[in-house]
Amino acid sequence: MDVTASQGYYLEDLQVGQRFETATHTITEEQIRAFAGQYDPQPFHLDAEAARATMFGGLAASGWHTAAITMRLLVDERLFASGMIGAGCELAWPRPTRPGDVLRVVSEVLEIQPSNSRPDRGIALMRSETLNQAGEVVQRLTSRMVVFRRPRSDAGTA
Amino acid sequence: MDVTASQGYYLEDLQVGQRFETATHTITEEQIRAFAGQYDPQPFHLDAEAARATMFGGLAASGWHTAAITMRLLVDERLFASGMIGAGCELAWPRPTRPGDVLRVVSEVLEIQPSNSRPDRGIALMRSETLNQAGEVVQRLTSRMVVFRRPRSDAGTA
Repeated sequence: MDVTASQGYYLEDLQVGQRFETATHTITEEQIRAFAGQYDPQPFHLDAEAARATMFGGLAASGWHTAAITMRLLVDERLFASGMIGAGCELAWPRPTRPGDVLRVVSEVLEIQPSNSRPDRGIALMRSETLNQAGEVVQRLTSRMVVFRRPRSDAGTA
Repeated sequence: MDVTASQGYYLEDLQVGQRFETATHTITEEQIRAFAGQYDPQPFHLDAEAARATMFGGLAASGWHTAAITMRLLVDERLFASGMIGAGCELAWPRPTRPGDVLRVVSEVLEIQPSNSRPDRGIALMRSETLNQAGEVVQRLTSRMVVFRRPRSDAGTA
């Protein structure tokens, strides 16, 4: 990450094809069970024994847990520090997140569209893949982000 | 919810246009700050004062928090108790979730497609709207769910 990252990204800072990679987070069985107990209490997210007989074949994190960890990894890169806001997204979980997985996120800017009606902002389409330690994709997130232009008073500081 | 709900829904139990409504969950400022502290530590999810100057105009829950609560409300209805699995989804947050909001979810079956290659299952397309106490949509989730047919040994119990 370059120095811009500490202030977040403005519309002018983004270009199609630009990529960002986050730090890693190791997910534990304890974390998987704690999240699931609160938000997604299904047997395959709570109990390794019960999970064996299910489609998952073993304990797996809730997809919403993978999504929440993905957000944390992205926020920690200060990618959104200028106030980039998610307007909507598509999510897929091509394979389960397992206890002990070391997760990281690789994001790429797919499209940038300046707003015609609101000149202070635009929409960036971004694809964020959450990978495990084997480089396998456990989540694919395609999100439409509202991204602001750099404020005028700030123009000289870029 | 009818008696089927306690066992979860099999493919044969679903029909296009069928609707489900969950119980409610009241989200507190404390919950919003706790979730955000762990998964989405941005000022507008953590600090009411700092949030006032942002696009949100006040403290708002992380969209991932609204998604997690939505999942919990759906799981508590035992809609997924037969092993319905999310294959992917689209998510939008048309307005913020605020402290004190009383959330509930209304789901509707939009499409059902039996699998040609795997006769034991199908895909159901479902739209789940998360509403606040004013009936305003705070989240729109459209999900492709893998739904199993009722196991043969179970066929007489429906």
